[in-house]
Amino acid sequence: MRDYPEKPRDECGVVGIICNTDAAKGGLSAEEQARINTRASVSAYHALYALQHRGQNSAGIAVSNGSVIRNVKGAGLAPDVFTMKTLSELSGYMAIGHVRYAGHKTAAEINAQPFLIETMGEQIALAFNGALVNSEQLRRVIEHRGGIFQTASDAEVILNTIVYERLHTRTLEDAVLRAAKQFQGAFSILLMTKSKMIALRDPFGFRPLCVGRNVDGLVIASESCALDAVEASFGRDIRPGEMVVVEAGRLSSYQASIPERGALCAFEFIYMARPDSVIDGQPVETSRNLAGRYLAKSSPADADIVIGVPDSGMSAALGYAQESGIPYAIGFIKNRYIGRTFIQDTQGMRESSLKIKLNVLKPVVDGKRVVMVDDSIVRGTTIHRVVRLLREAGATEVHMRVASPKYEHPCYFGTDVLTRDQLMATRYNAEELVRRIDVDSLGFLRQEDLPNVMPDLKVGWCDACFTGEYPIPIVAEKERNKNGRQKDERIV
Amino acid sequence: MRDYPEKPRDECGVVGIICNTDAAKGGLSAEEQARINTRASVSAYHALYALQHRGQNSAGIAVSNGSVIRNVKGAGLAPDVFTMKTLSELSGYMAIGHVRYAGHKTAAEINAQPFLIETMGEQIALAFNGALVNSEQLRRVIEHRGGIFQTASDAEVILNTIVYERLHTRTLEDAVLRAAKQFQGAFSILLMTKSKMIALRDPFGFRPLCVGRNVDGLVIASESCALDAVEASFGRDIRPGEMVVVEAGRLSSYQASIPERGALCAFEFIYMARPDSVIDGQPVETSRNLAGRYLAKSSPADADIVIGVPDSGMSAALGYAQESGIPYAIGFIKNRYIGRTFIQDTQGMRESSLKIKLNVLKPVVDGKRVVMVDDSIVRGTTIHRVVRLLREAGATEVHMRVASPKYEHPCYFGTDVLTRDQLMATRYNAEELVRRIDVDSLGFLRQEDLPNVMPDLKVGWCDACFTGEYPIPIVAEKERNKNGRQKDERIV
Amino acid sequence: MRDYPEKPRDECGVVGIICNTDAAKGGLSAEEQARINTRASVSAYHALYALQHRGQNSAGIAVSNGSVIRNVKGAGLAPDVFTMKTLSELSGYMAIGHVRYAGHKTAAEINAQPFLIETMGEQIALAFNGALVNSEQLRRVIEHRGGIFQTASDAEVILNTIVYERLHTRTLEDAVLRAAKQFQGAFSILLMTKSKMIALRDPFGFRPLCVGRNVDGLVIASESCALDAVEASFGRDIRPGEMVVVEAGRLSSYQASIPERGALCAFEFIYMARPDSVIDGQPVETSRNLAGRYLAKSSPADADIVIGVPDSGMSAALGYAQESGIPYAIGFIKNRYIGRTFIQDTQGMRESSLKIKLNVLKPVVDGKRVVMVDDSIVRGTTIHRVVRLLREAGATEVHMRVASPKYEHPCYFGTDVLTRDQLMATRYNAEELVRRIDVDSLGFLRQEDLPNVMPDLKVGWCDACFTGEYPIPIVAEKERNKNGRQKDERIV
Amino acid sequence: MRDYPEKPRDECGVVGIICNTDAAKGGLSAEEQARINTRASVSAYHALYALQHRGQNSAGIAVSNGSVIRNVKGAGLAPDVFTMKTLSELSGYMAIGHVRYAGHKTAAEINAQPFLIETMGEQIALAFNGALVNSEQLRRVIEHRGGIFQTASDAEVILNTIVYERLHTRTLEDAVLRAAKQFQGAFSILLMTKSKMIALRDPFGFRPLCVGRNVDGLVIASESCALDAVEASFGRDIRPGEMVVVEAGRLSSYQASIPERGALCAFEFIYMARPDSVIDGQPVETSRNLAGRYLAKSSPADADIVIGVPDSGMSAALGYAQESGIPYAIGFIKNRYIGRTFIQDTQGMRESSLKIKLNVLKPVVDGKRVVMVDDSIVRGTTIHRVVRLLREAGATEVHMRVASPKYEHPCYFGTDVLTRDQLMATRYNAEELVRRIDVDSLGFLRQEDLPNVMPDLKVGWCDACFTGEYPIPIVAEKERNKNGRQKDERIV
Repeated sequence: MRDYPEKPRDECGVVGIICNTDAAKGGLSAEEQARINTRASVSAYHALYALQHRGQNSAGIAVSNGSVIRNVKGAGLAPDVFTMKTLSELSGYMAIGHVRYAGHKTAAEINAQPFLIETMGEQIALAFNGALVNSEQLRRVIEHRGGIFQTASDAEVILNTIVYERLHTRTLEDAVLRAAKQFQGAFSILLMTKSKMIALRDPFGFRPLCVGRNVDGLVIASESCALDAVEASFGRDIRPGEMVVVEAGRLSSYQASIPERGALCAFEFIYMARPDSVIDGQPVETSRNLAGRYLAKSSPADADIVIGVPDSGMSAALGYAQESGIPYAIGFIKNRYIGRTFIQDTQGMRESSLKIKLNVLKPVVDGKRVVMVDDSIVRGTTIHRVVRLLREAGATEVHMRVASPKYEHPCYFGTDVLTRDQLMATRYNAEELVRRIDVDSLGFLRQEDLPNVMPDLKVGWCDACFTGEYPIPIVAEKERNKNGRQKDERIV
Repeated sequence: MRDYPEKPRDECGVVGIICNTDAAKGGLSAEEQARINTRASVSAYHALYALQHRGQNSAGIAVSNGSVIRNVKGAGLAPDVFTMKTLSELSGYMAIGHVRYAGHKTAAEINAQPFLIETMGEQIALAFNGALVNSEQLRRVIEHRGGIFQTASDAEVILNTIVYERLHTRTLEDAVLRAAKQFQGAFSILLMTKSKMIALRDPFGFRPLCVGRNVDGLVIASESCALDAVEASFGRDIRPGEMVVVEAGRLSSYQASIPERGALCAFEFIYMARPDSVIDGQPVETSRNLAGRYLAKSSPADADIVIGVPDSGMSAALGYAQESGIPYAIGFIKNRYIGRTFIQDTQGMRESSLKIKLNVLKPVVDGKRVVMVDDSIVRGTTIHRVVRLLREAGATEVHMRVASPKYEHPCYFGTDVLTRDQLMATRYNAEELVRRIDVDSLGFLRQEDLPNVMPDLKVGWCDACFTGEYPIPIVAEKERNKNGRQKDERIV
Repeated sequence: MRDYPEKPRDECGVVGIICNTDAAKGGLSAEEQARINTRASVSAYHALYALQHRGQNSAGIAVSNGSVIRNVKGAGLAPDVFTMKTLSELSGYMAIGHVRYAGHKTAAEINAQPFLIETMGEQIALAFNGALVNSEQLRRVIEHRGGIFQTASDAEVILNTIVYERLHTRTLEDAVLRAAKQFQGAFSILLMTKSKMIALRDPFGFRPLCVGRNVDGLVIASESCALDAVEASFGRDIRPGEMVVVEAGRLSSYQASIPERGALCAFEFIYMARPDSVIDGQPVETSRNLAGRYLAKSSPADADIVIGVPDSGMSAALGYAQESGIPYAIGFIKNRYIGRTFIQDTQGMRESSLKIKLNVLKPVVDGKRVVMVDDSIVRGTTIHRVVRLLREAGATEVHMRVASPKYEHPCYFGTDVLTRDQLMATRYNAEELVRRIDVDSLGFLRQEDLPNVMPDLKVGWCDACFTGEYPIPIVAEKERNKNGRQKDERIV
Repeated sequence: MRDYPEKPRDECGVVGIICNTDAAKGGLSAEEQARINTRASVSAYHALYALQHRGQNSAGIAVSNGSVIRNVKGAGLAPDVFTMKTLSELSGYMAIGHVRYAGHKTAAEINAQPFLIETMGEQIALAFNGALVNSEQLRRVIEHRGGIFQTASDAEVILNTIVYERLHTRTLEDAVLRAAKQFQGAFSILLMTKSKMIALRDPFGFRPLCVGRNVDGLVIASESCALDAVEASFGRDIRPGEMVVVEAGRLSSYQASIPERGALCAFEFIYMARPDSVIDGQPVETSRNLAGRYLAKSSPADADIVIGVPDSGMSAALGYAQESGIPYAIGFIKNRYIGRTFIQDTQGMRESSLKIKLNVLKPVVDGKRVVMVDDSIVRGTTIHRVVRLLREAGATEVHMRVASPKYEHPCYFGTDVLTRDQLMATRYNAEELVRRIDVDSLGFLRQEDLPNVMPDLKVGWCDACFTGEYPIPIVAEKERNKNGRQKDERIV
């Protein structure tokens, strides 16, 4: 097995920028004109920067100037792909952007989005967050029409399906509506033609998507933190099953599909989303703090201090401390320069490499009984080493508290946790977990408390990774492994 | 108008490598095994290096190991795109490679070949040299089926057409045969599945394609110089209209189309091909030498020395000297390090930049009446400055002799000379040419001598750029400009 | 004035690795031999990674294999300069490494350390953290002997001085001892010959330096967090005025100078050092927590929550909350991907760029009276914008508490705060500060509490930036500006 | 032994640009002002481009704007190191530039020139072509004064010596004059202060150096081809032993040393210099043609065609053909894209890699008795493979003619041929050479003809590599190898 990271990764973040064109009229200084020309690309860049946590392997921005769409994308973080020079060449008033996680570099380059295609003289750009559970079937349908696939991406399936429907509809909107009915799974989609932007969220609302407004115009993004980054005020969430069309400054809303029971990914609150985002009414940070509080109630501990595992365990740790009355402390220091992958390639240093990334504040934990709060245990590949760091630093007891329920089932809706045998909580029972992680006690958030930590959520949620109750029936995993392949294993 | 280069550029070179798999069996040392694993990719690389003159903007290699095809491509020269590490990761026994000329960097990256697609569970890689004259029509047909285009490349049109035919045929070969009948224009194509390679040359044989054999197996390439580079002996040319299939070590030949009158591009001999290649029976170097000799007969000059404009005017200059009896001399030195484009970007040095690339041997030409031989005058953007260099160095007379007829008509078969108004010989009459180039006399190879300089050519040729007689009827240029677009202007 | 950063920057971090050579003897597998060969370079790399916060502009490692020293250095972070390939080429058993802050790229490249010189057949490598206050005088002495300078670095002055003394001494140690008496200022120095390492700390002990031991041998480093990174246990601090020599596995200690009153930089505890380091007995994190606690006592506030400005204000904020009883909260989210400089280059986005780096958790602060704790106010260039973010997010009151005294005097001992007029607390009185920063109240740590926040510190400290009482007399600033130059302004 | 290249490599090329400052006065457009500001750096760049054949491993340019000197240098070709952006930042009116050959990358980076140092408040930049034979002694003298060396370059020795003399002289010129008397060996030196340029050529005139003039001012360069590149007309050669000073637009000449018998390197004419250069009165191309002619007289052959080995054997081949009456032909094609080193790294392809670089025109040589002319045989590592190519292509006889005498003695004056045992003509007698190279006959230029091929040379020459008669006594090679080291082996 490859060296899978401990946590699931969200496979994408999307952003759409639509600037007012009346601002572009007349009598401007050269400098002001330059700002006007690049406000779409620069805003898209800043928004991607804010969404970078949703995908670090590729980044791309497509910009329309009203008559043609240009597209730049590549492997790496947004600042690796774009320079001010690149952005200034992407002149236009409307843009979509995308960041993506991918298993390896080749996949990153070729599957990078936005996709930009042309058909019947019309350019269409697409940025997509999610995963279709019926993509293989849709691919087969397209292939039986003579269609070809240059990538392994569901985005190419989506584009082909929309374009085919476009042959039988008067407008692109109608084509999207017809195609949307064929897509099963999680999808938050942005489509752009030279003059129009279309946003579409699946009827379950698996992945977040919201819209806001700033002085330049409208902004659509996976998370509200991207609105903040471009000084946009939050407008509203795109509703599950809603299609929003922006053209000539007007925003129209359509019912693309009859909304099912909402199935917003609960793991967005636990780990994936940025704490400063608010998704479907629920602030992420508040949710994490509450998770800590409920955890303190259901899994108390007799200890001296509560510490969190950086970064995403910190909020829950604070909540745990506040609820339990045990003092909160900063127990770990994370190396600020982590993110350059070279560290983990170093031979013979694999075991110690954790210490390079994460160090314990020995004076804080030495001689203490410690409650260590982490957001989740998914693959569980490194957690025992984190515990060992604490013990080596003198912690007399380590009580681990996990701010989410046991992660026991694969996710088919846009993360990279695709097989059951990667999941630690599936492979070991409670007793084995305690022994393997080497903690004095271990507690998880109770499934029944999950609703309590998302009190302001205005839609339903998906907790299939905890419960195994998938909102959409999933083909048995075994069969899937025989016929299908994991996405990134197919290098096209 | 952009700063078009003086000479037309061939848009592509292709290579196919098929290694014997029996060599791969058993009992090998690790080093020998490594050599076996990379012989396809390394040979493809070396062959591309030999074909580099046919395209400097992108390079790519796709390799099959029998069960999967992997593909690496990028912008730049072959050595920019590939390292030994990249090649060693392209493990396999069969490969196709491609080099390409493109007008700008974006086009280079996205249109880089080979293309690798998947349909109905089958991977197909394609490398293509040429240009279809009916690609717009074919695109429209595909689009009406719901097909989408991610690039502006004819290669994508070709792939879509073949794949669509594949739906109705038992074998890929049959699909290629059906598709080939729909392609109009110049095409030398290499197709590769995981177990099979197919080479196809258009019925006119516009672009060269030949096959050879070395110790590792078979080699197919645009020019025979690529066979030499991988120690392969020349086998034969793929015939116009022929389809060759190599599978399981066996080579089979099919008649893909009824061969028309041969129409091998005569300009391959004049400028495009490497002098050490032999195309359809005719050695390129010999042809250039003959061009100089016939030029000496039809356009004699009273002069002291004959010099050639590097690099491609040198052979004809020698031939002119040999026929005329006027001593041959080396009159120019070309900077060996040219090829890095930065030089031409330097502000305020545009005029003098020629001298950085090309310097005159003053002691050779000073006080002499000089015959200056160049291979052709196409756009004529720099030739007057070359003449000025000679005069400044003391040449008392400059008699220009051009080793090809007047280039007066656009080419639609795989070069970048697409509009008439770029052509110097079209815009000016003989007298104006002499005045603009500022020579004492000017002579072109006579059209009627063209056959004489290709005495060993075994097929017919296309000389439409000189005569305007296109082997395939061409939609009037004016209309084309209205409906169509120049390839690289469409950035997809 | 250039866009100076808000906080002072430490100009360097150093590390020395001395591996046991007996481990290298005989009978090893190829893999184990490779690990042995690179353990010095790889350990130096990991240690630099842990010291990266002390300098992000250049990195370098010099390695001795017992007979020759090789040196690799360059501009950028350690992972930008080194790859596993580079490190594996730096084979040897002993290494010194260096990270450095520099004002611009040119300065970064040419002034990168370690320096490696040769004289009298002996190679000497040097890594230096600090700043000499008499470097101009020493330069003049050297120049009057005919010496030349290729850089603006004090390291070159130090090397020249030691090498000159070496002419008159039997051993390098003696030369260092004689030279050390001439150096005035802050210096933590590592010197390496092919067989010996020398560590030297100035008599005031301005900059930290400590030694530890792991399975491979000895480790010397600027901060103890680097010992942790290479699994070394802390041994002891190098004492002010001490010279340590390691040769043939033996460590010897010398009194290089009569220790003055200790003058360890107090700002190391406030901002510069990593929280997980322990310097001269005092854990950094504990010191920051105490600063918050004392601040709460001397500057109480009537508020609803206490939040810290990331990253270095977090500990003090927690201490403030613990002492005051006001609930601690997470109020800001810092973009994890900051550090790529492109963001700040974006035209027309300067004002908003803070929001891209730092976002407020609106649900946390909305409607609250907030105590905002930061570690210090130095240049004060952005703090008012941070406050504005809080107000925009709905904070009803903002009470700023600064976990250090007013920073009113330049530092000449190894940071980049060289002129008084950059300092906000010098330019404005208390009332003006409140108005400019736009807070409801403003409190600083009292100078008299400074000793209280470093209770375990075993040496004296320098607080000249707060008090103006320099441990070494400083030439009046005005005169200095006339005669001297700021270091990085001299581009050599 | 490392894979030494066949031919000796000149270790450097230098250029100096001094622009008129009156041109810079007043009333200019922004564009014109930009051109004025960068004319020194851009001209230096273009001149280095023309001198690139003298060194491909590093390039650098130092520019003075009258008050400060800035310096940019790096590993690689000039276009690898410089972009238009870099050049535009090197604003100024005076520049020196340097290209250098080095054995490996590390040496290339650290030893790259120009060197820029500062002493006594004065910046001095230096570019140097040549080699001192007493550099070890001078180093020792400097080291005994306490001097240190950061590189293995003689340039650092030269700078130290000049700067030390500067302590005892009124002007830099006087210091250079005093220092020059201490330098033994080959040196063509350019020194630049912020307001002055000094050019110095050793009393033997081993390496070329000349001066010219263009519209911008004065140009000094290693070869006249660099004058051509910047549109400068040739003025005169700097004389052996002459020091030229340019300041405030005035050029002054001094006698730095009593000129010895001239000792211009004869190998400059045979291989090193560009054919379009004229050195000390002798055009290089003419010399090569004459070498072919004299070779034809002394070593006739009964053959059908004469061909040259590209690139430097072509002129002599033509001369041989002209003198002998045997037809000249183009027999080899050299891959235009050679120069990227990757090709030679390919495993298992070492033997065949020659064919990738050099291909035979089979139709030209097949069935022919061939005279193959090359400029020299030095290390002789590949010549037998070139001959084999001809035989494989069908040549019935191969008569090799070498346009220089037997190269039998090491060179200590600025090339990389430092040991006798690398030299093929030293290791084998005539009969063995014929057998090893596998030719039907072998002829060298006679030593007594050497003067005849440089008829216009106005100074004496060094032919020690052919005769062993060194103009300066050389310490016996054996002793040198014991005490000294080869330059690049010392990595500092």
